[in-house]
Amino acid sequence: MDIRPFLDYIRQYVDLSADEETILLSKIKQKKYLKGQYVVQNGDVCKFESFVLSGCLKAFYIDNEGQEHILMFAIENWWIADLGSFISQTPADLNVQCVENCELAQIHYNDLQQLYLDIPKLERFFRIIIQKAFVAAQKRIINNLTLPAVDRYLQFREQYHKIEQRVPQYMIASYLGITKEFLSKIRSQLIEKKEE
Amino acid sequence: MDIRPFLDYIRQYVDLSADEETILLSKIKQKKYLKGQYVVQNGDVCKFESFVLSGCLKAFYIDNEGQEHILMFAIENWWIADLGSFISQTPADLNVQCVENCELAQIHYNDLQQLYLDIPKLERFFRIIIQKAFVAAQKRIINNLTLPAVDRYLQFREQYHKIEQRVPQYMIASYLGITKEFLSKIRSQLIEKKEE
Repeated sequence: MDIRPFLDYIRQYVDLSADEETILLSKIKQKKYLKGQYVVQNGDVCKFESFVLSGCLKAFYIDNEGQEHILMFAIENWWIADLGSFISQTPADLNVQCVENCELAQIHYNDLQQLYLDIPKLERFFRIIIQKAFVAAQKRIINNLTLPAVDRYLQFREQYHKIEQRVPQYMIASYLGITKEFLSKIRSQLIEKKEE
Repeated sequence: MDIRPFLDYIRQYVDLSADEETILLSKIKQKKYLKGQYVVQNGDVCKFESFVLSGCLKAFYIDNEGQEHILMFAIENWWIADLGSFISQTPADLNVQCVENCELAQIHYNDLQQLYLDIPKLERFFRIIIQKAFVAAQKRIINNLTLPAVDRYLQFREQYHKIEQRVPQYMIASYLGITKEFLSKIRSQLIEKKEE
């Protein structure tokens, strides 16, 4: 497994000394998962933040009717976890499952607490990336409140075009909060429009 | 204006020395706003993060039809800003307006960047509070995808009962993404149910 993308990603935000990189890497667990395997299961405590070295994952919530609702996808250079569970070390509401075979760089909760003390720059790093994630979550709330499904789909394609090609349509429908039949109708209409 | 709630709030998360508190306070602008005044207007760059010492505010988005969609409320001990605009110092999508007369403790973007260097513990502080805000935003996305309006309203009342008493019903309807007529119907049904 190649850990360099992980270091390159962190270097975009903070400068770590060689010693700090060594300390950080000593706490990183590199782990392979097969397509279909769970990284987090709801009810369990989420013990790791996972950085995607390769592969594609989804985080989803199962409602009382057993329906799956996809909250996010993650591909290379993204982080994924049930952050609510991770920061409070309480049982997860979400599931995180591999949509493809995955290679992950994982940090255990306890190791991260120690890393924050040993390498305070990591506070800055995680502050910056979580701010970005928060802004993206707020945008999604606004889009859900204001945009019709067709526009939400077009925006998904624009923002996550690399993901669209890698996950089945029913998962995209779940992410958009619509049925797969409705997504299929939207897609046909867009193709017709293009051909006109 | 009493700045102690601001210091008490920060002390919940990090221990600052007396010197650090002095430096921090030297960068805080205490400002009064009247009900109806704007703290952020869409199109302007959001230059401040605002901590609420007293009062109530709303952050909202105006769609292409001129419809207002409320993204969040803030009362005492909450932070409010257009964070996307603040962190990138680009024009705001959101408006932040006072629902009551307000007293705010504000930190200017430039001062905050300097404070991060002078008091690295503030990196930790803002990392922790933004993580919580992110988890809350994710929960809201899940609720919007999975819960009927009546349950979203009940949850709002439970989580934000102090806010419910302070803002008009049409704002709560906007927050929930429903019309005020529909909220009124939900409320009547809940009252009937209680009386049965």
